[in-house]
Amino acid sequence: SSSFNSKDHPHRRYNPLLDEWVLVSPQRAKRPWQGQQEEPLPNVQNQYDPKCYLCPGNSRVNGVQNPQYEGVYVFDNDFGALLSEGVTFDKTEDELFKTEPERGINRVICFSHDHSLTLPEMSVEAITNVVSVWKEEYQNLGRLDYINHVQIFENKGAIMGCSNPHPHGQIWAQLSIPSQVARTQQNLKNYYDKHGTTLLSDYLQREIGINERIILENEAFVALVPFWATWPFETMIISKMPLNSLLAFSHEDQVLFAQILKDLTVKYDNIFSTSFPYSAGIHQAPTDLESHEEWHFHMHFYPPLLRSASVKKFMVGYEMLAEAQRDITPEQSADILKKKFNNSL
Amino acid sequence: SSSFNSKDHPHRRYNPLLDEWVLVSPQRAKRPWQGQQEEPLPNVQNQYDPKCYLCPGNSRVNGVQNPQYEGVYVFDNDFGALLSEGVTFDKTEDELFKTEPERGINRVICFSHDHSLTLPEMSVEAITNVVSVWKEEYQNLGRLDYINHVQIFENKGAIMGCSNPHPHGQIWAQLSIPSQVARTQQNLKNYYDKHGTTLLSDYLQREIGINERIILENEAFVALVPFWATWPFETMIISKMPLNSLLAFSHEDQVLFAQILKDLTVKYDNIFSTSFPYSAGIHQAPTDLESHEEWHFHMHFYPPLLRSASVKKFMVGYEMLAEAQRDITPEQSADILKKKFNNSL
Ligand SMILES: O=P(O)(O)O[C@H]1O[C@H](CO)[C@@H](O)[C@H](O)[C@H]1O
Ligand SMILES: O=P(O)(O)O[C@H]1O[C@H](CO)[C@@H](O)[C@H](O)[C@H]1O
Repeated sequence: SSSFNSKDHPHRRYNPLLDEWVLVSPQRAKRPWQGQQEEPLPNVQNQYDPKCYLCPGNSRVNGVQNPQYEGVYVFDNDFGALLSEGVTFDKTEDELFKTEPERGINRVICFSHDHSLTLPEMSVEAITNVVSVWKEEYQNLGRLDYINHVQIFENKGAIMGCSNPHPHGQIWAQLSIPSQVARTQQNLKNYYDKHGTTLLSDYLQREIGINERIILENEAFVALVPFWATWPFETMIISKMPLNSLLAFSHEDQVLFAQILKDLTVKYDNIFSTSFPYSAGIHQAPTDLESHEEWHFHMHFYPPLLRSASVKKFMVGYEMLAEAQRDITPEQSADILKKKFNNSL
Repeated sequence: SSSFNSKDHPHRRYNPLLDEWVLVSPQRAKRPWQGQQEEPLPNVQNQYDPKCYLCPGNSRVNGVQNPQYEGVYVFDNDFGALLSEGVTFDKTEDELFKTEPERGINRVICFSHDHSLTLPEMSVEAITNVVSVWKEEYQNLGRLDYINHVQIFENKGAIMGCSNPHPHGQIWAQLSIPSQVARTQQNLKNYYDKHGTTLLSDYLQREIGINERIILENEAFVALVPFWATWPFETMIISKMPLNSLLAFSHEDQVLFAQILKDLTVKYDNIFSTSFPYSAGIHQAPTDLESHEEWHFHMHFYPPLLRSASVKKFMVGYEMLAEAQRDITPEQSADILKKKFNNSL
C-alpha cells in the first residue's frame, strides 16, 4: 500500500478551536456538477436607493426615519432575535427539557452611507471607522451588566441570507455565552492552562514558520487558511499579539486590521471575479468581567462558494449528521487565494 | 416585568444529544422578507430519463452501465469522498496539526427504478424494500473489519445539494466515528451510565405524556418535532423500543418504519404543497463491535424551508459563529405539521 500524502488521500484534520474533525477528500474535486446554480449578485448598484431601508434619510418598516448619516451608522434592529426586557422565570432542573429565557440587544451597523459599496471597495480610512465603531459597540454593550457576550458579524450576499445589498453587518449582544463560543473558550482555556501561552499564538508562530497557508501579513495581523478549514475558501485573521479583544487595539492596530480586512476581501472578490459572498465574524473575550487570558482575537470568514460564482459547497446530509467535509485541501485554497492579482481601487 | 412564556419571549433550549443550545425567537417570525428566493423543484418528471445516470440501463460518467433494475439498486459512488485502500502513515503527536488518513466506502442507493417518484409517493411495500436494503448494507459494510461507522442519509432537492431528482440516498461507511456521532454517543452514554435507561426512551415517554410535539405514532415508532429542534420543520423518528440499530428490527418493524417514513414525508410535502426538500439520516450504533446499550435508533430530518416553498431559513453569520437560531417555536411547527390533511396516494 502507498504511503500517506495529504494531496491525494482522504484524511481527517482536527480543529482544536471546536474540538472536532473535518473530512478532507482531495480526490473528489474532479466529480462532475449537475446541481443547483446560484444567481450571482447584481454588481451594479446605485449609491442611493430610494427603496433601501438602510440608506440615509429613508424610512424603515416601522416608520422610523434614518438620519442623513455619512460613513458608519448603527441602530437597534427593528426585528431582533433578542429583546432587552428581563422576564421572571421559575427555573426547573429538567435534564431533557432544559430551557431558559434569553435577553439581549440586536444592532445593525451600516458600513457606509453609500449603497453601492462593499468592504473591499471602501478606503482603509473608511474601514478603520467601521473597526472603531465595532470597538465602541463591544465596549458599550459589554458594559451593560446583563450582557456577557457581543457577537459582531456580517452576512454578505443573498446566498448568505442577506436581504439587502447595502453594506452592513450586525451585532448580537446577549446574556449567555453562545454554544460555539463556549466550546472555543473551553478549548482555548485548556490549552492556556496547560502551556501558559494562547493556542493561537503558538499556532500562528508555527504557520509563519511553515508559510504554506498564509495569505496576507502586516505588522499586527495575519490572514491564513486554517489547517482545519471546512469551507472551501475559509480563512481567519489572527492578531500577532495575544490581544484578547478589540479593547486592546491601539489606533495603529485598528488601521492595520482595516488594511488586512480590505486586502483579504479584495482577494476574495478576485477568485471568481464576483462580489464574494461570506459570513464573517469576530471571536474575542466574552464581556463577563473574567480576565480571559486564554482568548486571542480572531475573525472567521466562512464563504460558501466552491467552483465558481454560481456553484457553492453544500454542507448537507453527511455534514449535518456526521462531520464537515471538504473537497480541495486548505493548501490548494491558500494557493488560489495567494496567486490572485490585487486589482482593486 | 412579565413572567416567562415560551410563545412570546426569546429563550434558549438545550439539545441533550449534542450538548448545545438553540436560541428560539418566537417574536421574530413577523419580520418582512426581501432576500433570496429559491427555485422550487420542477414537479413533473418522466418515469425514465435518458440523461439520468441513475436510471436503469443508462451509462454513468465512468462508462459503467446500470443494470435494468427493478426497485432498489445499490452501487459504489463513482466520485466518493472516501477510498477503500489503506495507506501507511507515521503518526505524529502534534496538538495543533493533528491529522490522520481516513478509509471507507461510499455507496449510492436508488430507492426505485422510477425516475419520477419520491419517498412519499412510493408504496409502503416499496419503502419497506428500501429499509431492508439499508439494514443489509449496514450489516455487510459494518462487518468489514476497518468499518466502524455506517452513515445512511438522503439529500433531497436541489436546495440540499442534490444533483439528481432520481429518488436516491447515500451510505458513507468509514473507519472513524464522525464528530457529530461521537458527540451524540458521548451524551447518550453519560445518560445511560447515570440512569440505566436510554436517553431517548425517557425522552419519548415524556413526549408521549405531554403530547404537544408528536406528529405521528404507530406501534413501533413515533415522529415528533424535538423540543430542541433547530431547523424550522426539523423532526425525528424514534423507535419506541430501545433498538440500538437496524439489526434489531423485525420484519414488522421494517414495515412500520416504512409506514411512518411515508406518512411523515407526505406531511412535509403538504406543508407548502411542494416536493419538500430535506437532508435526513439515521443515527444508530457504530459497527465497532462494542455493545452500545446507550444507542437508541433514530432518524433526523433537517428541512431548510421556513416560510414557503421558496423561502428557506439561513443558518449563517450568528448561527455559524455563535449558536443555532430559530424563529417559530417547535410547538408551532408541530401544529402546522399535525393539521395538514393527508392527501397522498
Ligand atoms: O454526493 P453528492 O450528492 O454529489 O453531494 C452532496 O452530498 C454530499 C454529502 O452530504 C455533500 O458533501 C455535497 O456537498 C453535496 O453536494
Ligand atoms: O438578520 P437578517 O439579516 O434579517 O437575517 C439573516 O441573519 C440572521 C443572523 O445570522 C439569520 O438568523 C437569518 O436566518 C438570516 O436571514
